[in-house]
Amino acid sequence: MRILIIGAAGFIGQRLTKTLLHPAKEDGSQYENKITGLISFDKVITTPPFQDNRLKIEAGDFCDYDTMRRLLDPMPDIIFHLAAIVSGEAEKDFDLGMKVNLHAVSQILELCKASAKKPIFVFASTCAVFGGDMPDIISDETAPTPQSSYGTQKAIAELLINDYSRRGFVDGRSLRLPTIVVRPGKPNAATSSFASSIIREPLNGVVAKCPVERDTRIYIHSPQKVVQNLVHSSTIPASLFGKNRIVTLPGITVSVDEILTALELLAGKKTVSLVEWAPDPFIQSIVMTWPTEFSTERASSLGFSRDESITQIIKSYIKEEIV
Amino acid sequence: MRILIIGAAGFIGQRLTKTLLHPAKEDGSQYENKITGLISFDKVITTPPFQDNRLKIEAGDFCDYDTMRRLLDPMPDIIFHLAAIVSGEAEKDFDLGMKVNLHAVSQILELCKASAKKPIFVFASTCAVFGGDMPDIISDETAPTPQSSYGTQKAIAELLINDYSRRGFVDGRSLRLPTIVVRPGKPNAATSSFASSIIREPLNGVVAKCPVERDTRIYIHSPQKVVQNLVHSSTIPASLFGKNRIVTLPGITVSVDEILTALELLAGKKTVSLVEWAPDPFIQSIVMTWPTEFSTERASSLGFSRDESITQIIKSYIKEEIV
Repeated sequence: MRILIIGAAGFIGQRLTKTLLHPAKEDGSQYENKITGLISFDKVITTPPFQDNRLKIEAGDFCDYDTMRRLLDPMPDIIFHLAAIVSGEAEKDFDLGMKVNLHAVSQILELCKASAKKPIFVFASTCAVFGGDMPDIISDETAPTPQSSYGTQKAIAELLINDYSRRGFVDGRSLRLPTIVVRPGKPNAATSSFASSIIREPLNGVVAKCPVERDTRIYIHSPQKVVQNLVHSSTIPASLFGKNRIVTLPGITVSVDEILTALELLAGKKTVSLVEWAPDPFIQSIVMTWPTEFSTERASSLGFSRDESITQIIKSYIKEEIV
Repeated sequence: MRILIIGAAGFIGQRLTKTLLHPAKEDGSQYENKITGLISFDKVITTPPFQDNRLKIEAGDFCDYDTMRRLLDPMPDIIFHLAAIVSGEAEKDFDLGMKVNLHAVSQILELCKASAKKPIFVFASTCAVFGGDMPDIISDETAPTPQSSYGTQKAIAELLINDYSRRGFVDGRSLRLPTIVVRPGKPNAATSSFASSIIREPLNGVVAKCPVERDTRIYIHSPQKVVQNLVHSSTIPASLFGKNRIVTLPGITVSVDEILTALELLAGKKTVSLVEWAPDPFIQSIVMTWPTEFSTERASSLGFSRDESITQIIKSYIKEEIV
């Protein structure tokens, strides 16, 4: 079995690479011994902290037709597509977002269509396909109403993947990812950055500014759970998806207050006191438009799983990154 | 005021051209005296049955970049986009459908984005964005689940138009059209062809075959009502659409039995006896997947209107085409 990961240098991509080749006990061993080759592809080369001669690390531009034609010949059995221009950047540079988030995906689908072998295509989509005027509870039957170009481009890619799958050109699965908490590394420019910062920075002895109110709720998924669900999605028989390959992953909804309570329980009062309140009405107003209540029975019936609790998420982060 | 109609040679396009320049009394006079120029554009030249020196009829390929750049320079005030590869053809020729129904629309949006003047862009979409597993009643909040490449391409174009409008690149309005009854002319290869045939053929003294059961229900709009609503959509202030430029037009849902009862009332038993029953399980199975129950409060609140009754629709057809 041959696997290709596009966008493999990001923290999800790196984690996915490791989980596929050398899974931790709790992540299960779906493909470990079946994989004969794994191409880890991104703009830059990132060397993993392990040796494996099945792993080939390549760098290039996945928007480039010839590069992709070469990468998909021979066609892999499974493609994980994680590469994207993120929300803020796609809003700032519309053409770049369209090129990377839409046209490049469309190009990969065309290459799959032209191939005799039809790969499983796992696409990292986003809950940001929702926004604006929404029903109180969102399900897989709710119309996407993206309020960003990023969300629009992802919603369009989902529709393309559905139709290419219906016609047998590819065997697609689009997963709508919740906000990922705890992201390792540094704070970034994403509006959701605070959700990881208020956990990560205090645990590293650093002050974190919280721009939103204590009762602000967010819909989250841990990095470990995202990777488990990405791998799981590729094992589901196509027929179980019915006529729709799009699934909103089952996150958990937590308030900032619940996050800080869990953090205090695990790391003490002194750690939590490193969170400073710095209300930012602009960020608050954006975060308030994010959907937080999802009905995810369909995802559960397909075998996708959610994190146990925010406490468990923070505990795992401490175990992996701090200790 | 300058208007461009793309796909002007079809029966809706011809009717729209006439209604804009020389409206019948019941169609209202939205633009009649404001229009200084109207370009009627299609693959072929169709000469209208009236003279008007504001009207310019042009033929060409609207997928061609240079043709469109020329047509949109200077940029019209309003563009009506009616041209499409229909359902059956887009299913048979995937690449052609993608080119005409998606890439050509995307190209027009890009040309609007590049222009200093942002036109009103009225897009003829379709209720065929729905299919497969659907809730009992469909509203503008229901996720499109197209079961055809045609429906997929239209749903994607709607999302693009929403985002281009949100960003101020164009002032778009996407109308989801019900099945149009009574289409003038000959039966065609469309699965919905019977809905017009069972009215039109008997009124012309010709036998019509009905492939579906008497209790089969369809969601319909008359040609007159479609044109009224297309024109109306271009007069609505953008702000009234809120964050969503997509509207399902308010059709009426009628059964085959109700159609034939109305036909008998207007044209007599002998006329209706020209309808022969020729059950076609394949057509029946497709028609059964079409949604028939829509909640269209939003369309009504935006001032769109529905036909009065199937009796009125048939009466208008008789008045226009038979007498």
